[in-house]
Amino acid sequence: MRYELYYWPMIQGRGEYVRLALEEAGAGYTDVARHGNGMAAMTRMMEAGKGTPPFAPPFLKAGKLVIGQTANILLYLGSRHGLAPKAEAGKLWVHQLQLTIADLVLEAHDTHHPLGPSLYYEEQKAPAKKRTDEFWKARVPKYLGYFEDLLQANGGTYVTGRRLTYVDLSLFQIVEGLRYAFPNRMKAFESEIPGLVELRDRVAVRPNIKAYLASDRRIQFNEEGIFRRYKVLDA
Amino acid sequence: MRYELYYWPMIQGRGEYVRLALEEAGAGYTDVARHGNGMAAMTRMMEAGKGTPPFAPPFLKAGKLVIGQTANILLYLGSRHGLAPKAEAGKLWVHQLQLTIADLVLEAHDTHHPLGPSLYYEEQKAPAKKRTDEFWKARVPKYLGYFEDLLQANGGTYVTGRRLTYVDLSLFQIVEGLRYAFPNRMKAFESEIPGLVELRDRVAVRPNIKAYLASDRRIQFNEEGIFRRYKVLDA
Repeated sequence: MRYELYYWPMIQGRGEYVRLALEEAGAGYTDVARHGNGMAAMTRMMEAGKGTPPFAPPFLKAGKLVIGQTANILLYLGSRHGLAPKAEAGKLWVHQLQLTIADLVLEAHDTHHPLGPSLYYEEQKAPAKKRTDEFWKARVPKYLGYFEDLLQANGGTYVTGRRLTYVDLSLFQIVEGLRYAFPNRMKAFESEIPGLVELRDRVAVRPNIKAYLASDRRIQFNEEGIFRRYKVLDA
Repeated sequence: MRYELYYWPMIQGRGEYVRLALEEAGAGYTDVARHGNGMAAMTRMMEAGKGTPPFAPPFLKAGKLVIGQTANILLYLGSRHGLAPKAEAGKLWVHQLQLTIADLVLEAHDTHHPLGPSLYYEEQKAPAKKRTDEFWKARVPKYLGYFEDLLQANGGTYVTGRRLTYVDLSLFQIVEGLRYAFPNRMKAFESEIPGLVELRDRVAVRPNIKAYLASDRRIQFNEEGIFRRYKVLDA
């Protein structure tokens, strides 16, 4: 079965957590909105009516199933492609960690959009600066400290132990995103999370991930996505 | 098996979505932090180290399992207590809807905390007013319009059809919360969502829910929770 991934074509955004899982798994998929009339197809699928219309991208078409919400898509893919335990306890635990990452991703987004997604960054620059300061003072240390502790407690290779899960792929993306958006702040912070930095390196050299990152399937970071580089927010 | 729910003892907050599911199911549970040394027990379980420490409350102890993240807890409870379909497609769909509700809950929270959870409301009153205006202009209509459309498309009884799921219980709480926090705005808006208002009434008279709401197990809304009544934000 070839999957169809539906996501905004110009950004990594939340779709990237799904792309990384599909790429690591070597699964066949089409990134629909990046081709031909894909954007129109994506819009049609979100229109309310019968069936299970998603509230927002990303969503994944897997045969007849249409699955929305990033963490939910990973829950589905994880047990099918060896990216999460099959037993219930492990499956719930890895999903729980992914939901915590989803919370962090939203807070990273809100550094440049504290007044909500319906206004432009340019309309909220002053509150963005304040929110970013708090994000780095209180939130990044709390979130990344939590994952660093877990990693160390479980042997230091992957967050839940010796086997890679989709959570490790997502943490790779978190480190990459924070490095892109906040190079100065992240440089100063990385000594607090040596295990996560090593995890990032470990993920980056996995053959399928390495090939993906070098391909044009990997969209570059930019100022339309979740992680945006605004110099004033990195000061 | 008697469940143990761990959540902040003074607020409904995110714990309330779990409480409503447990109450509707007639499941035995202890709301741990509301009794004796429960707060200390909750703190101990969150301390990093071995096992599966949750990042934040709420979390549920079910035998040996400790499950964190509200939607993940409902995913676990749903199939066990007839509050979600057992088959994978339906299970993922209901979970996806719950994750969309979780996004709405966070946006409702951020109306009074646009600069993040690490500052007091009193430190962010002006941005809170702006974020609240956007929330009601763009976000409430989008989210509640989505659920209203689903409800109508599926026959108008419950969101996914004729059978109640935990999503319906959560939408009851959303309507209640918006009515509490924003009585004027919500009064003006309710004609847009007649189906959801009826759903709220349908849930409220279910025997187990009715008994719960009348009991002292139901904490009252207050200005420490997600839905807070600040007159200036309701203007």
